[in-house]
Parts: sequence; structure tokens; C-alpha cells
Amino acid sequence: MALIVQKFGGSSVADRDRIFNVARIVSNTHNAGNDVVVVVSAQGDTTDDLLAKAAEITHDPSGREMDMLLAAGEEISIALLTMALQSMGTSAISLTGWQAGFRTDQSYTKARIQRLDTERIENELNRNRVVVVAGFQGLNKMDDITTLGRGGSDTSAVAIAAALHADRCQIFTDVEGVYTADPRKVRNAKKLEEISFDEMLELASLGAQVLNNRSVELAKKYGVELEVLSSLNPVPGTVVKEVAKDMEGMLIKGVAKDTDVAVITIMDVPDVPGMSFKVFGILAQKKINVDIILQAGGRDNTKDLTFTVPLGDAETAISVLEKNKARYGGGNVKLRTDFAKVSIVGAGMQSHSGVASRMFEALYESNINIHMISTSEIKISVIIEKKDADRAVEAIHDAFIH
Amino acid sequence: MALIVQKFGGSSVADRDRIFNVARIVSNTHNAGNDVVVVVSAQGDTTDDLLAKAAEITHDPSGREMDMLLAAGEEISIALLTMALQSMGTSAISLTGWQAGFRTDQSYTKARIQRLDTERIENELNRNRVVVVAGFQGLNKMDDITTLGRGGSDTSAVAIAAALHADRCQIFTDVEGVYTADPRKVRNAKKLEEISFDEMLELASLGAQVLNNRSVELAKKYGVELEVLSSLNPVPGTVVKEVAKDMEGMLIKGVAKDTDVAVITIMDVPDVPGMSFKVFGILAQKKINVDIILQAGGRDNTKDLTFTVPLGDAETAISVLEKNKARYGGGNVKLRTDFAKVSIVGAGMQSHSGVASRMFEALYESNINIHMISTSEIKISVIIEKKDADRAVEAIHDAFIH
Repeated sequence: MALIVQKFGGSSVADRDRIFNVARIVSNTHNAGNDVVVVVSAQGDTTDDLLAKAAEITHDPSGREMDMLLAAGEEISIALLTMALQSMGTSAISLTGWQAGFRTDQSYTKARIQRLDTERIENELNRNRVVVVAGFQGLNKMDDITTLGRGGSDTSAVAIAAALHADRCQIFTDVEGVYTADPRKVRNAKKLEEISFDEMLELASLGAQVLNNRSVELAKKYGVELEVLSSLNPVPGTVVKEVAKDMEGMLIKGVAKDTDVAVITIMDVPDVPGMSFKVFGILAQKKINVDIILQAGGRDNTKDLTFTVPLGDAETAISVLEKNKARYGGGNVKLRTDFAKVSIVGAGMQSHSGVASRMFEALYESNINIHMISTSEIKISVIIEKKDADRAVEAIHDAFIH
Repeated sequence: MALIVQKFGGSSVADRDRIFNVARIVSNTHNAGNDVVVVVSAQGDTTDDLLAKAAEITHDPSGREMDMLLAAGEEISIALLTMALQSMGTSAISLTGWQAGFRTDQSYTKARIQRLDTERIENELNRNRVVVVAGFQGLNKMDDITTLGRGGSDTSAVAIAAALHADRCQIFTDVEGVYTADPRKVRNAKKLEEISFDEMLELASLGAQVLNNRSVELAKKYGVELEVLSSLNPVPGTVVKEVAKDMEGMLIKGVAKDTDVAVITIMDVPDVPGMSFKVFGILAQKKINVDIILQAGGRDNTKDLTFTVPLGDAETAISVLEKNKARYGGGNVKLRTDFAKVSIVGAGMQSHSGVASRMFEALYESNINIHMISTSEIKISVIIEKKDADRAVEAIHDAFIH
């Protein structure tokens, strides 16, 4: 007998049939003699409906009221799933985020979990009930409802698994696991049996969009093994853990494309100490995350500073840089949005030379120009033109994974 | 400066335009220097949607999960109304039932309020905020969400007005007040300026459907003056209070029709002491409310016992009476569902003779046959054939109200 946390996203509980599909998975797990805590998101269309209702009222809602509104979504899905479980003869109870003991900080719409009081969940488990918990939500010290932001339900599930020392934390999605590339676009994409937390973090931040980064960070911090698997197809998924075994002959774990990239260049920045610090300090004040940075010599003791930011931050970045030109003595600021980032990830590349050159070779053979390069211990990213991105992913994938 | 509680039903917040209409009423009240607590129900279609979702899952949902599901409805409407108020520059905050301090007993789907902890509401009022409270819902001592059953939001509003010693409790509806008869059916129906709690209770239980009975009982108990008025048409409504002044020349306050009536007759019950007690004891065990009772002599030391029950209880009543015939020695049990109850209500009839005869005369002149009669201090009811009911209401109304 084990304690298993199972998380299902909004599309997995989208309608009656899908709810019963989830209820069957949960019931089978419970009937096999396990304690089960289920974490669910709001039904996909419920969230959309609520957002549309709010947009009709105002385009600048307060975070507190937005959280009050959106939290209703999970209350609906936990009640419906619990009804389905009960109708199948499985003893079950639903708990909102605050009933389940989630205490968060004050920041509405993107709250951080501060504490999880597991007393109620444990009491219900001791009564042999499946506990159906509303993901994504908690309560702050004002006794006000907060939500955890994007991917919050994954984080809720991992937090419960960590606090209860669960034997397994299963994240059910509409894909069968983590792939070496997007299987809808790359023919030879392979499902991974295992992947390390660090590799998963790099892939998630690169737009693989299987698991939310915060949940992977939390799982790594508390040593919670995750399993990513399909709610529709009952085959083994991908296990995310501290040290993942390498698959036969696979130097890398995945190739990912990220089109959420704006490339900004500041021309003719004076080449004196402290100028980069000033530029990035200005951006940091606006909470803009800078990703890849490239510095090239310019004319007459100046340099050109090129860096990437998320597309949504590009306009703010340009305007704040223009406004503060005097502070860093820079010249023209240019923006390009026709780029994409393509990356390979794998702990294996640390101990193998030639990984980067094999990647660049694949791009060269496909006649794709590289504009920027960035490397870390387990990742190599290149900035290339957006129109070449899908071809680049396929070429690189073919070069590493057969 | 006064403290005013304003309650708006589901149709008053049904869509964006109606929400802003409510927000304007509330804002104007607040801008005039008053403290305002607003109680809202779920949007009309939200409740319907949630009920439909539950019906898709199971036809026998647990009360606890049903309450979890339905409570989401008011969370949506309080968030939307608060956003609307804020967008108009009015400081406001939404509170769920439990945040507002509603503590109830354990009975899901029809919980009774046991306590109202007003600390949070008072704190928010002290910060000069309009407090928007979710009606209909509370929390039991298990920390589980409960709902108050039909008309629960009226009850929530009255409870808040009582606990805060509010100066006024306004119940906004889609009619302009309490009328002497259904204004859609009786041409000369008049809006009442005032009506007493007792008169309102009789009218509500007779199917006038303006105010929920529990809320009127609570208002009477705590001496909370209610005002029933329209959210769409800003004219004075009807005040419900302990002693209402009589309107010029009006002996009665209203004429009401109730078609939720089944008439049951048990033939040939032995005419010995205790038999009525046995019959009605059997029905009471099944929690069936008997309304009008008529006992007539039968043949050979027997009597016929005729009484009315709500239509929904008729089948249960017949079956339990058939099963227990031996206990009361009765004969054939007959059911008729083609009757209606028409009643007149008015505290004035206590001090005026001839009210009953004027009512019977109006029916006689319309050639309508009376099957049963029941009287109380402020009410006279007759059971007549359903097909005659609308004509009867009009004839009686014309006889009393000009």
C-alpha cells in the first residue's frame, strides 16, 4: 500500500466523459489498496468563461477579486469529480485550497505557498477517503483567497506529495510523457523513460510546456519523484528524478524551440567598466528577465550590446532604455522579433566533447545561420531566424537521436 | 449616515449591464454617505449551468458536494460586482459566506444559520469599503461549505442587518414591491406602502413569492424592517414591519392563489376518539405538512376526513395511508389534484365583521363553488376548483380593493 498523489489538468476534466475517465483512474488506484490524493484544475472552458466575464466588467481588475473569481473554477471541478467517484462507489471528499491547508503569501494572482497544514487531508485519508483537492489556490494571512499563477496545480500536487512524503506524484496530461522534441512536429521524437530535474527545468523553461518550472523546482528541492503520463492512454510515462539513467546512445534529452524571444541591440555603448551593469540594472528595475547576452566590439572604443527578453517585455524594455540613455551613454536601440531560440538539453553533454560542434554542424548542413550562442553545463542554445526554427529542431534532433 | 444592507437576487446580476445597474445603485447609496453591505445571489444562469453539470454526473449527488458546487456561483457574482464597483471608483471588497462569518448547522443544502461573526465585515466597513457578501452560503463546524436552501440570500441579508443593527434592509427584486394580488393577472392590483410581518408571512406561504418565509420570520424575530423594491425602477417599494399602517379603506392586504394543493379524503373512518391523531401522526412521521382539515359525519358511526397536502407529498401520503389502514381503521383513500387555494390576508379583518361573508358573496356571484374553508386571525382560505382560481382572485380582489 502506497500514498499516491495524482494531478489532472483542466482538459482532463473538461466534460462529463473525461471526468468519469479520471474517476476510473483514481478509483482503480484506490481499489488497488493505495491512499490517493487527487489534485485538479478548473475545467478548461470554465476558466475561459470566467476570464470573459471579468473582461466584460473591466480590463483592470484587482488581483484579489480576480483570485476570488477564478478560484470558483476549481471548486466546480472538485465537486463534480467527487460526485463521479461517489457514484462509482468510491468514498471521496472534495477540499478547496484553504480547506486542504494551503497557506500562501500576499501576492494575488501569483502567490507562493508558505505552508501546508496537512491535518485535514490526513484525517480524510485515515477515513479511507479519496481526497480531491482544488489545485492552484490557497489562503493568505488576511484569510483571503489567492491563486498560484500559471501551472499552479502542478505546484499544489508537488507540495502535497512533499508534505505527506508520498510514494509517487503522478502528473496526468494529454501527452504520454516527456519527449526528445515536440512529437507533433518531429517524426522521430522519442518518449524518455527518465529525465533529471535539472534537464526538465531547462526543457520546461525552453518552452517544452509539459511541466511547470516552479513545480519541478519544488520537486527537486524536496526530492519528490514525478511521473508525467497520459490520462487517456494507460502506458508508462516519463519519470522525473534527481539522477536519471541515460538512454542507450542518447547524448541529449531533448531539443526545444522557444519563439517567445525578442532580440534587442544597443549600438555604440561606451566601452568602459560598469556600462553593462547599468543597462541590465535599468531592466532589472522593471523586472524584465534578460536571457542570452552577447557583447561585440563596436567602433571607436564602443561596443554593441545584444540580448534577448520575452516578447511581452520588449516594448517596456525599449521604452525604459530610450528614456535612460543618458545613464549608460548608449546609441541607437534596435528591436528584432523575427528570431527563435533552439536548444538542446542533456546532463550527458558534460562528459562528452563534441556535442556543440555536432549541433552547429547540423545547422550548417541545413544552411541555417546562427545569430547568438549561449551554453550552460547541460544546455546549448542558439538564436536563429524564426522561419528556420522547425527545420533546425528536426535537423538537430536527427543528428543526436536515432 | 446610516448602515444599509442591500440584497440583489440572481436575475439582478444576470449579465454585465445588470451588474453595472446594481453597482450604480450601491455606489449612489455609498456616495450619499452610508455604510453599505451588499448581499448577492449567484447569477441566474450560473446556478442553472451548475445544476446541469451535476445532473450529467449523477442524479443522487451528496449534499456536501452539491453545496461545494453551488457555492461557486456566488463567488463568481460577488467578484464581478466588486470589480464593477471598483471600476466606478467605489472602494469595495468581496467576502464569501465563510469569510463574512456565517456559521451554520450541519445540514447540507438547507443549513440554518447558527452564528454570524461580524468582525471581518465591520473591519472592512471601518475602512470605508462597500462589503459585497455571498448570500446563500456558510460554513459548518467541520469547516465544510453549506448552503441555506431556497431563498437563502434573503435570509443572509436579514441576518447581517440584524447582527449589525442596520438602519435598513432593502431586498431588490424585479417587482416594485408587494401587491394586493399578482399584478400580471389582476388589473386593479395595488402596490402596498406597508405590510406587517405576519401578513407578509401569510402571503409568502400562500405563494406570493416575493420574499422567502425564513427571511421574514428572521426579520420579525430581530425587528429588522425590510423594504421590497425594484432594482430596475427607482420608486419607493413596500416596507415590511411589525405594525403596518392600514391603507385608506383597505380591509385586506392581499389576495393570493396557491395551486400547490392536493386534496385527500379518507372515507368511513371510525368515529371514536384518537382516530384523527393516528391519521395525522402517520403523516407527520413522513414529515408531510397537512394544511386545511375538514371532518364530516359519515354513515354508521364513521366520518370522512378530508385534508390538503402539497402536491409533491401526495403520492407518499397516499401510499403511507394505504399501508397503515389497520392502524386507523379507515376505508377508501381518495386523491384529487384539480383544486386550488385562494386566500385573503389582512390584520384589519380582526376588527371588522363581515369580511368572510363579503368574500363568500363575491364567489357566489361568480358562481364558484367552495369545497373547504379555513380561517385564522388574519387569513381566510377557500379550496375551490383550479379552473375557477384566477376568476376567484379577481372577483374577491374587486370586492375588497377599489
